[in-house]
Amino acid sequence: MKFTILTLFKEAYSGFLATSIIKKAIERKLVEVELVDIRDYSLDKHRHVDDTPYGGGAGMLMSVEPIYRALKDNYDAKAKILLTSPKAKPYTQVKAKTLAQEKHIIIICGHYEGIDARVELLADEMISIGDYVLTGGELPSMVVMDSIIRLLDDAISPSSLLDESYTDGLLEYPQYTRPYAFMGHKVPDVLLSGNHELIRRFRLKSALLETLKYRKDLLLKRRFSAEEKALLKEIEDELKRR
Amino acid sequence: MKFTILTLFKEAYSGFLATSIIKKAIERKLVEVELVDIRDYSLDKHRHVDDTPYGGGAGMLMSVEPIYRALKDNYDAKAKILLTSPKAKPYTQVKAKTLAQEKHIIIICGHYEGIDARVELLADEMISIGDYVLTGGELPSMVVMDSIIRLLDDAISPSSLLDESYTDGLLEYPQYTRPYAFMGHKVPDVLLSGNHELIRRFRLKSALLETLKYRKDLLLKRRFSAEEKALLKEIEDELKRR
Repeated sequence: MKFTILTLFKEAYSGFLATSIIKKAIERKLVEVELVDIRDYSLDKHRHVDDTPYGGGAGMLMSVEPIYRALKDNYDAKAKILLTSPKAKPYTQVKAKTLAQEKHIIIICGHYEGIDARVELLADEMISIGDYVLTGGELPSMVVMDSIIRLLDDAISPSSLLDESYTDGLLEYPQYTRPYAFMGHKVPDVLLSGNHELIRRFRLKSALLETLKYRKDLLLKRRFSAEEKALLKEIEDELKRR
Repeated sequence: MKFTILTLFKEAYSGFLATSIIKKAIERKLVEVELVDIRDYSLDKHRHVDDTPYGGGAGMLMSVEPIYRALKDNYDAKAKILLTSPKAKPYTQVKAKTLAQEKHIIIICGHYEGIDARVELLADEMISIGDYVLTGGELPSMVVMDSIIRLLDDAISPSSLLDESYTDGLLEYPQYTRPYAFMGHKVPDVLLSGNHELIRRFRLKSALLETLKYRKDLLLKRRFSAEEKALLKEIEDELKRR
């Protein structure tokens, strides 16, 4: 899979590309990341890529033409073009899984002062990682890449992907490692029992409890299994008794 | 303002700290970012910071003790301790503004394989940047820092902060810069009129239309001014006529 990132700040990616899972995925040739400096496609010798807004106002806007030229030069027929923008509905794990099927993703990084509205015409889709304002599209593009790269075969061991948050619509159950007791807080005894069925049931119940406690909204659309319904009843009864 | 980041991947931050607004804010001493390697607080000579989960399961968990020791060594009475976690409600611009009032924020970065549940006891608050899974807490910590640093005095010119998405609950109006026509798409004539009142009205109407089109949910809790109500009526009539 290939990512092409159109940005004014190539230097922002140095740490991201050299770290952990991403570095390994690049080394294993699972993924290729190409950084393209939009300034290289400026129309003037001073490498300007922005200009004042029509109608007046603060700041400078990124111009559409250098972005269009950068895009034309790095485009292929299979490419999916994303534009980071606060307009999009917030990105989700479902979207990450869909995008992980693509062959080539191009991300145009916007910048905080604004971008000519006509850049939107060049993108297949706008993408936002959440309802907050950032200085540019660089961090969002890394978040999108990170979420996708970890889903690609072999980037992470498949068993690690199984048990985690959101993948089955519940938060992850709490996990514990040594020491057994930390400042008086002990590991739940069932986890030391060696009884796999009890452990499985405890973990499912804990995942339900965590989700109920922190992210009730995730339960609204869920279809519960018979076992989950029984565990929820247990949780309800226990909460009443407190 | 000070940020202390507890991480296993200090190298992930090199690009972030050297780029644009963040670099300038550090140079101007508006903000200080300290990176702390949790491995430096390992309890063994092999610098281990993780261990197998009680009760079995895939992967390794980050242990609570090295994190506790790192925290103790970098703590001060004013510090607000955040833990990146998928459990938290998604981060918003309102939260960024609240956190921008803090003197010292410590962020504990989780990692994809999981973290001992007792680390939560050490944090004041858990924080999640959205409903998707990432390889670790490093990108989320950068997103949180970026959203806060740009709000600090002088990190960005105040006029740039005024007109942007979410700050007044609407998406930003579309903006345009040269050229006047790009592949047949022209800048709306009103922006060339020089009539400030017409331009202001056009922009407010465009912001309402954009929000209606892309993020209707943002309008649900809004109290509209009389002018906004009139503009929404205009938009409605125009949409009917199409």
